[in-house]
Amino acid sequence: MSSIDKRLQDLGIELPLPATPVASYAPFIVVGDFVYVSGQLPLSRGKMTARGRVGEEVGIEEGVRAAALCAVNLMAQLKVACGGNLARVRSIVRLGGFIASGKEFFDQPVVMNGASDLFLSVFGEVGKHSRTAVGVSVLPLNAPVEVDAIVRLDRNGER
Amino acid sequence: MSSIDKRLQDLGIELPLPATPVASYAPFIVVGDFVYVSGQLPLSRGKMTARGRVGEEVGIEEGVRAAALCAVNLMAQLKVACGGNLARVRSIVRLGGFIASGKEFFDQPVVMNGASDLFLSVFGEVGKHSRTAVGVSVLPLNAPVEVDAIVRLDRNGER
Amino acid sequence: MSSIDKRLQDLGIELPLPATPVASYAPFIVVGDFVYVSGQLPLSRGKMTARGRVGEEVGIEEGVRAAALCAVNLMAQLKVACGGNLARVRSIVRLGGFIASGKEFFDQPVVMNGASDLFLSVFGEVGKHSRTAVGVSVLPLNAPVEVDAIVRLDRNGER
Repeated sequence: MSSIDKRLQDLGIELPLPATPVASYAPFIVVGDFVYVSGQLPLSRGKMTARGRVGEEVGIEEGVRAAALCAVNLMAQLKVACGGNLARVRSIVRLGGFIASGKEFFDQPVVMNGASDLFLSVFGEVGKHSRTAVGVSVLPLNAPVEVDAIVRLDRNGER
Repeated sequence: MSSIDKRLQDLGIELPLPATPVASYAPFIVVGDFVYVSGQLPLSRGKMTARGRVGEEVGIEEGVRAAALCAVNLMAQLKVACGGNLARVRSIVRLGGFIASGKEFFDQPVVMNGASDLFLSVFGEVGKHSRTAVGVSVLPLNAPVEVDAIVRLDRNGER
Repeated sequence: MSSIDKRLQDLGIELPLPATPVASYAPFIVVGDFVYVSGQLPLSRGKMTARGRVGEEVGIEEGVRAAALCAVNLMAQLKVACGGNLARVRSIVRLGGFIASGKEFFDQPVVMNGASDLFLSVFGEVGKHSRTAVGVSVLPLNAPVEVDAIVRLDRNGER
């Protein structure tokens, strides 16, 4: 068991089997050392855990949890991209966060911390990332949050 | 005629001459093997083919066609970036899709498939890409869709 | 004094000390030759210079100035990433611009030129970049503009 799997276990996080690609795109693309992971929604066993805009139908704590679930789903995709070994992750380069927001909701960074904090908890220093968080009017399937990622891998696996 | 040009012809797609850069930025930037293509709008011969938000003024099929036109315009820029030879495209790494959306429109992925499907039709396996699709309140020139791309090229051209 | 510092001085631009990272993410990440800079807001000495949506509470010229201030803050982060020597910047690869917009405001490109033009003024040919500019309903802290960047550095510094 890698140190990352251990930390996931300590945090009580079980990575789901990522959805197989059914739509017209791939869940991730590996190019050289980099993985581009497609935007992930807060789906758990195929169900959205919250719907609507943060600051309206969705409370801020619910939004934070939704962002954390997006992070879990990103990690699940990433694990496949790593051939099962998340210890190959060398750097979480960038997270892009889109928060469906009510017109007077300005705390997108607080919501997005749900994803950022989880990456830091799981990956430690390696999990430090650049980030852009913006509010949008509406997201696919009425999701409150969508997060994508660019990640750098070690070529030679285990650290 | 490259295999890609042949497929474009079979699909009845004629790539336009891409607009020369008039604004304060470049239509694309090549860095190493990668091309970053600026956000493209559904312009045909300089005219927007539809205006407004999908789910409001713009129907979903019209949105899908607009996304496909963004893809055509991305390919036109890409062709210039490739020195005229689209067979140099090694991987469509990522598409970023922004759909101007009515507040109750949640089918951004369906709209964005207009762009994704066209890349798959033209480039086959090479056209498989990661993707992020989000809804936004408004786009430049009242466009219904804007799509940008990151693409990897072969260094040595023809495959 | 590098040529870039000279140009900043000629333009009367003093780069601020960039904010130290207080939140759950880094202001930038360096990977190989590339720097990914987190989304920057139009903050001056810790204060937002304008609040609200362009086309509503915020006028277009105010929006342009806000975008330019985002660019200044990007450069301040970039200077740290360069070890103090902005002449190491080899290419401004991509700017991502998010403009908080009223529902009938379609001139996001004009606003975003505030950032693009400043990069061109300071970096010349090296400052040419790809770009995506979209309108969003709301931004963190009620900012009118947020801009992020991907930048390529020279490995060996001084040009």
